[in-house]
Amino acid sequence: MNKEVKNTVKIIPLGGMEQIGMNITLIEYEDNIIVVDCGLAFPTDDMLGIDLVIPDITYLKENADKVKGLVITHGHEDHIGAIPYVIKELNMPIYATKLTMGLIDGKLKEHNLSRSVRKKVVTHGQSINLGCFRIEFIKTNHSIADAAALAIYTPAGIIIHTGDFKVDHTPLFGEAIDLARFAELGKKGVLALMADSTNAERPGYTMSEQKVRVTFEHLFQEHKKSRIIIATFASNVDRVQQIINTAYQFGRKVVVEGRSMVNTIQVASELGYLNIPKDTLIDVEQMKNYVDEQLVLITTGSQGETMAALSRMASSVHKKISIKPGDAVIFSSHPIPGNEKAVSKIMNELTRKGAHIIFQDTHVSGHACQEEIKLLYALTKPKFAIPVHGEYRHLVAHRELALNMGLPKDHVHILTSGDVLSLNEQEARITGKVPAHGIMVDGLGVGDVGNIVLKDRQQLSQNGLLIVVVTLEKHSGMCLAGPDIVSRGFVYVRESENLIEDARQVVAEALDGCLRRHVTDWSRIKASIKDALSEFLWKRTKRNPMILPIITEV
Amino acid sequence: MNKEVKNTVKIIPLGGMEQIGMNITLIEYEDNIIVVDCGLAFPTDDMLGIDLVIPDITYLKENADKVKGLVITHGHEDHIGAIPYVIKELNMPIYATKLTMGLIDGKLKEHNLSRSVRKKVVTHGQSINLGCFRIEFIKTNHSIADAAALAIYTPAGIIIHTGDFKVDHTPLFGEAIDLARFAELGKKGVLALMADSTNAERPGYTMSEQKVRVTFEHLFQEHKKSRIIIATFASNVDRVQQIINTAYQFGRKVVVEGRSMVNTIQVASELGYLNIPKDTLIDVEQMKNYVDEQLVLITTGSQGETMAALSRMASSVHKKISIKPGDAVIFSSHPIPGNEKAVSKIMNELTRKGAHIIFQDTHVSGHACQEEIKLLYALTKPKFAIPVHGEYRHLVAHRELALNMGLPKDHVHILTSGDVLSLNEQEARITGKVPAHGIMVDGLGVGDVGNIVLKDRQQLSQNGLLIVVVTLEKHSGMCLAGPDIVSRGFVYVRESENLIEDARQVVAEALDGCLRRHVTDWSRIKASIKDALSEFLWKRTKRNPMILPIITEV
Repeated sequence: MNKEVKNTVKIIPLGGMEQIGMNITLIEYEDNIIVVDCGLAFPTDDMLGIDLVIPDITYLKENADKVKGLVITHGHEDHIGAIPYVIKELNMPIYATKLTMGLIDGKLKEHNLSRSVRKKVVTHGQSINLGCFRIEFIKTNHSIADAAALAIYTPAGIIIHTGDFKVDHTPLFGEAIDLARFAELGKKGVLALMADSTNAERPGYTMSEQKVRVTFEHLFQEHKKSRIIIATFASNVDRVQQIINTAYQFGRKVVVEGRSMVNTIQVASELGYLNIPKDTLIDVEQMKNYVDEQLVLITTGSQGETMAALSRMASSVHKKISIKPGDAVIFSSHPIPGNEKAVSKIMNELTRKGAHIIFQDTHVSGHACQEEIKLLYALTKPKFAIPVHGEYRHLVAHRELALNMGLPKDHVHILTSGDVLSLNEQEARITGKVPAHGIMVDGLGVGDVGNIVLKDRQQLSQNGLLIVVVTLEKHSGMCLAGPDIVSRGFVYVRESENLIEDARQVVAEALDGCLRRHVTDWSRIKASIKDALSEFLWKRTKRNPMILPIITEV
Repeated sequence: MNKEVKNTVKIIPLGGMEQIGMNITLIEYEDNIIVVDCGLAFPTDDMLGIDLVIPDITYLKENADKVKGLVITHGHEDHIGAIPYVIKELNMPIYATKLTMGLIDGKLKEHNLSRSVRKKVVTHGQSINLGCFRIEFIKTNHSIADAAALAIYTPAGIIIHTGDFKVDHTPLFGEAIDLARFAELGKKGVLALMADSTNAERPGYTMSEQKVRVTFEHLFQEHKKSRIIIATFASNVDRVQQIINTAYQFGRKVVVEGRSMVNTIQVASELGYLNIPKDTLIDVEQMKNYVDEQLVLITTGSQGETMAALSRMASSVHKKISIKPGDAVIFSSHPIPGNEKAVSKIMNELTRKGAHIIFQDTHVSGHACQEEIKLLYALTKPKFAIPVHGEYRHLVAHRELALNMGLPKDHVHILTSGDVLSLNEQEARITGKVPAHGIMVDGLGVGDVGNIVLKDRQQLSQNGLLIVVVTLEKHSGMCLAGPDIVSRGFVYVRESENLIEDARQVVAEALDGCLRRHVTDWSRIKASIKDALSEFLWKRTKRNPMILPIITEV
C-alpha cells in the first residue's frame, strides 16, 4: 500500500442527492466510519399512501464494527427524522448541540429508545474524537437555532460540512455565524467543502431575520383591533421568539396550537432557547378571558397540511378555535415546492371565513444565496468541492459557483446517493457504489411496500378495479355460479347497470370459449377473462381498471 | 308586474367561481338567455383518475327554448374547452372573434360536430343581436390573440364582461386594448362590471410583452453557439410570433414540436395571426441538415406535463429529439399553481442531460394587476361589480379594489357558482340557485364517476385492498373452500407471507364464530369478516386497506 492510497478518505452520501431530504453522509477512513446527519424524506407524488422515506443502511450494517458515531448538524426532520429507525437497526452514539439533541431525544422517547442510546451534547467551538476523526462544531445561522457546520479532521485532510446554513450578521437571537473560524480553517488548508446548495440559483444575499421583525411590528400596528394568528414552521424557534417578543411589546397574550409547535416550544424553552416573558403564554382554555386585540395565536399548518391546526381551524373542525371575520392570519413561511396548491386552498378557506390573509415580507429563507456560498469558498479555500442539499439543478448551480471561485473542473463533484467518492490531496474520484435507495415507511411497515405495490395503487387510484368471481365444477370445468362482477372506484354502478351486465356477458362468453377449447388451466382461464374484459371496457369507456378474476372450485 | 321587476336582468355563473377554470355565465332577461364562455376545468388533486370537469347545464336544458346563443371572450381551454360537450346536449349558435372561432372549430371537428353548429365570426367593434340583447365585442389584450371583452346591452342596462384581460399599451402584435371604448361606455352608463380577478392580489401593472422581447434578444445573443429550445403555452400565439421573429433576426430555423403547438400554429397562421417568414419553419425531419446554432425549437410542456414534448425529450422517450449537453432550454411561462413540482422535476431532468435552464424574465402574465383593474373601474364607472375569474381570495381582493374605487358595499357581489343574481338600477341581490356542480369526465364517461367512486379510489390509492373469498355450502353454511386472500396495493406479499397467513386465520375464526352463532345472513357474515380483519390489520400494520369479502355458495 503506498502513501497515496493510505491517505484516501471516502465520502458516501446514502441519501439527499437525488431526492430532497433524507440527508445522510458517511465519512470513511480505513476502519473508521462516522455518519453525518440521519434525515427522512417526505414521499414524492408517485409514492401513494407512503408516510415517509428513510435511508437504506445496508452498507452501514455490513460495516457495523467500523461505525464510531453519528454527528448531527441541526434539528430539522430531513437531518434527524430517520434516527429512531436507523438506531433500532444499528445502535451508535449521537453527538449534537443542545437544542438539536433535545429534539432528537423527543423522537427517541416516542420510539422508547431514549435510554438505550448514548447521547453527548456538544457546544459550538468544541471538538470530539471518533476513531481516527476529530469533529469540530462551528456556529452557523439557519432557520432553526443551534445549527452547526462540522469541520471533520481526517488523516487525509479537513472536510467541512456546512449542514444547512445562511450568513446572518444580525441574527435576532444568538450569535452570528463564526466566519472567523472558517477563515482560520482556510488558512490551515481545507481538503473539501460540502456546502448547502438549496439557494444556489438565487443571486445576492439571503435577508436577515431582522427584516421579518420590522414587518411584524408594522402588521401588529396595522391590525391593532384584530386577533392575530401566525402560522409558521414548528421548528423555527427564532421566529417563534420574535412573535412572542412582538406580542409582549404590543401587550398581547400568546396561545400556541398544534402538537409539533407545542412540543418544540416546550423543548426549546426548557433548554433555554426561548425566552418567554412571565404571563405571556396562556392556555387555549383561557382565551375566552381575553378580547381579540389581546391575543396572538401561533400555529402549525403554514404549508397547508390538512391535519395541522390551522387547516382544522379553517375548515371548522378544530375543537377549540374557529376563524372569524376580522382575524388577521399571517403566513410566516414560504410554501415548500409542491405545497403551493394546498397553501392556496387553505388561504381561500380562511378568506371565506372572513379572515384577512397576509403573506408578503413575512418570511426569510434559512439558506445561503450565491454571494454567501461564494463567501464560504473565499474563506475556506477548499481543494475540492462536493455540493450537497438541493435538487439536481441546485447542485449544478452550486458547481458553477465553485468553478467561478477558481476550482478546477475535476475538483468539483456532484454525487448521486450511494456513490463512493475517494478523496486525497491529489484527486477525487468515484470508486464504488453502495445501496442507497430510500426505504418506504407505510404505517408500521418499513420496506414492505415496493414498486409493484405502488404500481397497483397507481392503477387503482386512476381507474379502480373489477373483480370477477366464478365458481367452477371440479373435473367438468362447468360454471356453477357466476360470473359475478364487483367493482370499486370504477363507475357509479347504479347508473351503469347496462355496462356491468354487458361485462358479465363478455366474461360468460370467454368462459364458454375456454370450455369449448377444453382449457382447464386456471391461469389460462383467468388470462382469457382478463383479455376479453379489458378490451371490452377500453372500447366502451376508454378506461383501464384493474381486473381481478377469482376462480373457486367445488 | 311593475317596472322595477320588469327591468331586472339575471346573472348566473354556472362555474368559474369556486374552482379555477370552467368559466360559463348566463345572462337572462325574461325569455332570453345568452351564455358567455363555456370552459372546462382540470381536475383537482382529489379527483383521482378524472380527465376534466365540465359545467352542469341542467338549468340551460330546462330553459332550452330561451337560449339565444353562446358568446366567447377568447380561445383558452377554461373558456372554450367544454363547448363540444355542451353543444352535444344543447345546440346553439356560437359567436367569437376569428382566431377564437378557429380554435373552437378545431375542437368541434375532433368531436365530429363542426357541421352541425352555426358559427359566426365577429370582429372587434362589431355588435350582434341575440334576442333582447345586443353584444358588442371590444378589443382587449391577453396572453392569446383576439381576446375580447363583451358589452352586453340588456333592457336593464349595460353589463361589461372583460373575459381575461390585461392592459398592454405596447403589444408586439395587433392593437392595444380599446380603452377609449370602455370610457365611452362609462359615459353612457354601465350597470355592472364583471372583470378578471386573477391578479387582483398583485399591486401595480402587469409588464408589457415588450419585456419578453428584450429578454429573448439578450438570450439569443448570449447562447449563440447553442441549440435553443423554448417551451411555452401552445395558445400563446404572440409569444410564438416573438420567438419566430427573434429566430429570424438571428438567422435560425424554427422547429415546432408538440401536437397542440402544431395545431395552434397551423390555425393561427392560416387565419393570419402568425406571420412566418419564408423558409423559417422547418420540419423536425430536416433538423439533421442544420447545426445547433442554426436551430430554435418551440415546444409544449412548459408546465411539466408528463406527456408533452419537452417531458418526452427530457426523459429520452421522444422519438426524434433528445436533449444534449449545451442545449439552452428557456421556460417562457410561469408554473400554474399546483404544477411547481412537475416543472421543477423536468428542470432537474434537463439539467442531468446537460442542458442550461433559463426561466427568469422570460414571461409576463396575461392578467391585469391592481392598477389595471382600477383603471377599468375608473373608465367604466359601473354601478355594480361582480368580480370573476380567480380563486376566492382573488375575488375578495378584487372586491377590496372595487370598494376603494368608491362602490358601495352592497353593490359588489361575490357569487358562488349556481347563484342567481337579480340586478336592476336600484339593487342587486341573490334570488335563487341553480345546479352548478362540475360534471366529471373520465375517458368516455361523462358524469358516471361520483363521490363514492372517488372515495373508493382515494382509499385504494392509499392502502390498496384485500379480497377475501369464501365458498359456503348451501343450507349448512359450512366453509367448503377458502378463506383465500388476494391483495393488491397493500403489501409486498412475498415479504409478508406471515401477515397474510395470520389474516386468513382471523377470517377463519370470524367464520367459525358466525357458524356457532348460527348467523347465515351474508351481509352479517361479510360484516364480521370485515370487522375482524380491519381490526387485525390496523393493529399489525397501522393501515386501512379496503376489505372486500366475497361469498359464493354451492
